[in-house]
Amino acid sequence: MDIASFIGIFGGLGVVAFGAFSGGSLGGLIDIPSLFITGGGSFLCLFTTYPLSYVLGIFNVMGRVFKTFDFGEKALVQKLVSFSEKARREGILALEEEIQDLDDEFMRAGLRLVVDGTDGEVIRTLMENELNQMEGRHMVWITLVNAWATLAPGFGMLGTVIGLIGMLSNLEDKSSLGPNMAVSLVTTLYGSMMQNWLFVPISGKLGYQNSMEVKSREMVIEGVLSIQAGDNPRILAQKMLTYLTPKDRKAIESDVMKD
Amino acid sequence: MDIASFIGIFGGLGVVAFGAFSGGSLGGLIDIPSLFITGGGSFLCLFTTYPLSYVLGIFNVMGRVFKTFDFGEKALVQKLVSFSEKARREGILALEEEIQDLDDEFMRAGLRLVVDGTDGEVIRTLMENELNQMEGRHMVWITLVNAWATLAPGFGMLGTVIGLIGMLSNLEDKSSLGPNMAVSLVTTLYGSMMQNWLFVPISGKLGYQNSMEVKSREMVIEGVLSIQAGDNPRILAQKMLTYLTPKDRKAIESDVMKD
Amino acid sequence: MDIASFIGIFGGLGVVAFGAFSGGSLGGLIDIPSLFITGGGSFLCLFTTYPLSYVLGIFNVMGRVFKTFDFGEKALVQKLVSFSEKARREGILALEEEIQDLDDEFMRAGLRLVVDGTDGEVIRTLMENELNQMEGRHMVWITLVNAWATLAPGFGMLGTVIGLIGMLSNLEDKSSLGPNMAVSLVTTLYGSMMQNWLFVPISGKLGYQNSMEVKSREMVIEGVLSIQAGDNPRILAQKMLTYLTPKDRKAIESDVMKD
Amino acid sequence: MDIASFIGIFGGLGVVAFGAFSGGSLGGLIDIPSLFITGGGSFLCLFTTYPLSYVLGIFNVMGRVFKTFDFGEKALVQKLVSFSEKARREGILALEEEIQDLDDEFMRAGLRLVVDGTDGEVIRTLMENELNQMEGRHMVWITLVNAWATLAPGFGMLGTVIGLIGMLSNLEDKSSLGPNMAVSLVTTLYGSMMQNWLFVPISGKLGYQNSMEVKSREMVIEGVLSIQAGDNPRILAQKMLTYLTPKDRKAIESDVMKD
Amino acid sequence: MDIASFIGIFGGLGVVAFGAFSGGSLGGLIDIPSLFITGGGSFLCLFTTYPLSYVLGIFNVMGRVFKTFDFGEKALVQKLVSFSEKARREGILALEEEIQDLDDEFMRAGLRLVVDGTDGEVIRTLMENELNQMEGRHMVWITLVNAWATLAPGFGMLGTVIGLIGMLSNLEDKSSLGPNMAVSLVTTLYGSMMQNWLFVPISGKLGYQNSMEVKSREMVIEGVLSIQAGDNPRILAQKMLTYLTPKDRKAIESDVMKD
Repeated sequence: MDIASFIGIFGGLGVVAFGAFSGGSLGGLIDIPSLFITGGGSFLCLFTTYPLSYVLGIFNVMGRVFKTFDFGEKALVQKLVSFSEKARREGILALEEEIQDLDDEFMRAGLRLVVDGTDGEVIRTLMENELNQMEGRHMVWITLVNAWATLAPGFGMLGTVIGLIGMLSNLEDKSSLGPNMAVSLVTTLYGSMMQNWLFVPISGKLGYQNSMEVKSREMVIEGVLSIQAGDNPRILAQKMLTYLTPKDRKAIESDVMKD
Repeated sequence: MDIASFIGIFGGLGVVAFGAFSGGSLGGLIDIPSLFITGGGSFLCLFTTYPLSYVLGIFNVMGRVFKTFDFGEKALVQKLVSFSEKARREGILALEEEIQDLDDEFMRAGLRLVVDGTDGEVIRTLMENELNQMEGRHMVWITLVNAWATLAPGFGMLGTVIGLIGMLSNLEDKSSLGPNMAVSLVTTLYGSMMQNWLFVPISGKLGYQNSMEVKSREMVIEGVLSIQAGDNPRILAQKMLTYLTPKDRKAIESDVMKD
Repeated sequence: MDIASFIGIFGGLGVVAFGAFSGGSLGGLIDIPSLFITGGGSFLCLFTTYPLSYVLGIFNVMGRVFKTFDFGEKALVQKLVSFSEKARREGILALEEEIQDLDDEFMRAGLRLVVDGTDGEVIRTLMENELNQMEGRHMVWITLVNAWATLAPGFGMLGTVIGLIGMLSNLEDKSSLGPNMAVSLVTTLYGSMMQNWLFVPISGKLGYQNSMEVKSREMVIEGVLSIQAGDNPRILAQKMLTYLTPKDRKAIESDVMKD
Repeated sequence: MDIASFIGIFGGLGVVAFGAFSGGSLGGLIDIPSLFITGGGSFLCLFTTYPLSYVLGIFNVMGRVFKTFDFGEKALVQKLVSFSEKARREGILALEEEIQDLDDEFMRAGLRLVVDGTDGEVIRTLMENELNQMEGRHMVWITLVNAWATLAPGFGMLGTVIGLIGMLSNLEDKSSLGPNMAVSLVTTLYGSMMQNWLFVPISGKLGYQNSMEVKSREMVIEGVLSIQAGDNPRILAQKMLTYLTPKDRKAIESDVMKD
Repeated sequence: MDIASFIGIFGGLGVVAFGAFSGGSLGGLIDIPSLFITGGGSFLCLFTTYPLSYVLGIFNVMGRVFKTFDFGEKALVQKLVSFSEKARREGILALEEEIQDLDDEFMRAGLRLVVDGTDGEVIRTLMENELNQMEGRHMVWITLVNAWATLAPGFGMLGTVIGLIGMLSNLEDKSSLGPNMAVSLVTTLYGSMMQNWLFVPISGKLGYQNSMEVKSREMVIEGVLSIQAGDNPRILAQKMLTYLTPKDRKAIESDVMKD
């Protein structure tokens, strides 16, 4: 469970509620038709752009911000270096049994290609192609959330303009002028909140998760190709260490760089 | 028929109508001169930028969002792998008769070049050139819809400013002030709706359709060149599978990777 | 004469005039000092950025949107393929006399280099350099029009703020409040119109014309280099055809692909 | 201590205070709930996007604008040229003892690879990888500050809309209308100040510091590879000098270019 | 002296003054505290981002828009072609004495490398590196002016919000309402003017001057490398001519292309 996302989403909502409370307008901010116009209208427009299955899956994908993903970079380095040492000592075929137990499907597929004696350039093409396609799929999701983030304030503004037109067409009752205008503004508020509090930060997190996953897979590609080429395990270890933060690097440096 | 686009376009319109109805201003939102200024004015400005035939064709192109396009990626993989196997078994010339029946003009042209013994580098240049030109033509259309998406709120704002100037020049009749301003705002509403509800989502869909088509053609190029180079059909199958979603891949993996 | 540009510019103006007329403010929209502040002020600022000759030439360049340019892509393909065939049949020197009559200076210069026996790589560098420089010069013009498109609404807003300040400093005469504010808004209207109705569409057209010219020159470079390399005219024809729209291609395919 | 950052941050605040004082509203600008909504709300939203440790570390990172960083480019050139001369005169192994005393960890690691006889291409990969990862980490921080710079005015606007809604729902007391609206505007002011006075300039400085550090490391990579390749120290000196400003270059030119 | 910049800056100011005069508010537009808040506040924020010496040098750099720079492209072509001919006729060492008298430091340094017998690839690296560093330094200045162009309207808006807050907190005196609001708007006016009339055009000019200088240096690099490689002076002349405008090319074509 990703505690930071909880802090962000519930904390942000709390701050807005506090603001409304201290401004004495907490009740006036909750208006179901306004929510329907802003949230529903912008959501429906997503259907025009994206296939049905994508739009319906967006809530599921946005829920990913609450999950923690561990791409285990430190363990990755240690595993790849140990494979490299084994391959050097006992030959590439010795990796066959190691591969059976691997959880990481991407690494397993790559190493199987190595064991099968596939050409290095072909392995690189296959693995990079797969990585690019994965990133492409992630990008569709991120673009989808971004599209919502842009449409929401657009529909918020639309709702306010519609409210203003209704109000201005009928100015006789001066006493209802203020409250009517207040209601009109609620859609602007909802649109702006959806953008600033929800969709932009969520799309940012999805992008961050994607960049972490891409980075860990680039490490796997680098490692698998290094094993295929029969590089010195020490050089591989050094290459892998450059991907880690200085702190993580310190933690495992002595381990993987053992002479 | 693309059901999602129907949901998006008619659903979005319905939400706006509901908003107007619940705000009691449904009648006040329909104003033909305002529609003419916003939609007509911005449409006419497209003529300044693009050739006649393009601007007149824009409604046709926008209608594409209601059509479903199936670039049949799974069938593509199976076909290319079976061609590759045949070429390996019986020689490249054996593909000649297969080509006759191909519906896919792009693949047929590519394979004919292979059968004719054209050099691989030349085939790549020809096929990529054709793909780039196709994408270039699509991009002109997408840019055209985007241009309209930008001009529409510009003309909406223009209409509102014109209305305000007319209203302010003649303030004597206080009672007509509100309704006049309401009418002025209708063009802003139309401009914003055209952008958020119509043109931006439609341009997004056209872009999505283009990216799917480009991807399927890249698969064809990859496959044709692989056949020309006499690659192992198994390697080709693996390359092709990386283009598919994990679900699609599962579905045909056992089929094309048969040993 | 480019009829589309006429439709765009005069049609767009007509729509705005119709809007003003139907809002009863046609007279109030014409204000020479406002035009001077918005159009003149933004135009003068262009002098700060660009050399004298460029700024003074901008009206001339913008006038190009009314001219039709025909880069004759179909004829280009036919000519280059016929040259290629002749060079193959009778040797490259046989092109010497053909070159004399060529109107297209760019193609002539390129083919003369071929006849002179210049190295292919040098020809490519020279021709691409020339193409890049031409595009660079076009880009300065397009940037200039874009700069005006950005400055015009800036000065429009400036004029409105100046008008508001004048009006607010002197609020005694309530009856003149409305008309004064109306006049202030006219500069906003002019700035927005210059941007949406004039400069953005014109800059778009200049960009479109440039992209067509660049494409036709790329075809010439491709063709000239193909002739220099002694490629098969059939391959050249196929390469050239990929640049054409499907319709144009159909029209001349049988002609240039004759066996 | 970076005196310029002090001038910028405290001077900028002083100017705003002066403006408020001369407008007679200094007291009215300080409102703790408004600060909490604008600053707190936007800060909390950062948690949704970034991992806990990053968000909590942001104040520390922003504090870097007050520190001066000296990447010592002049000394770098002199050191690398002297190493190059020594390696040429006494062989690469002679650098071993020099390396012990080096403070610059990046240069030391690079030179040790040279002394160990590592291949030049491998050294380049390792060093560039490390540089890219460092820049990637810096970029996350800069993006984080930029995200705050974008969210702050968003929450400022949100606060104002909330205030307006509260005010408009309750228009009876005309006398409190002005002050209530004034309070609503304070969040807009805070959001705009955080963006213009604080976060955008700070993110700019972090970007500047990063570009300086990247440049100095590129010099080290260039120098280390030049030593590995056994280049003429004079050529290395010339390469290094191109990285310096004309003034710095003058200062050490005679020193490192001694014949 | 660059007459165009004078026209732009003083003409633009004159148009704004005319607008203020015709709106009867010339006196009301001059307000020293407003100038201090908008110009001073935004200027001080630059200190947070850039080193002291850069910020203090900005006025000097902006003064460059009034200077004319002649990068003498025509003379450049003639000189490089004549050097090329001499080197071909009398050998590269014959250039030694020509170099002594060269004013252009960049060309002199390049040619000295040629005379010293430096390798072509090394010369290219050294010269391009130097060009990139020069462009990098220019870019810091241009970015600095752009930063000011963005901050100025930000502080203008800040000043207006501060003024509005002061005014709204104290609504008793209705008669001062208008003038107070007028004063508030003056900072918006100043911010917008600084951006549209001053900083954006000036930054544009600095960018234009930079692009001209970069282009002339690219010509020198091309020419020096061509001389080093012993290319035919005729080919060099043709390469150089592609950099010139059609008009300039006509003027010297017969001169440098003499057989």
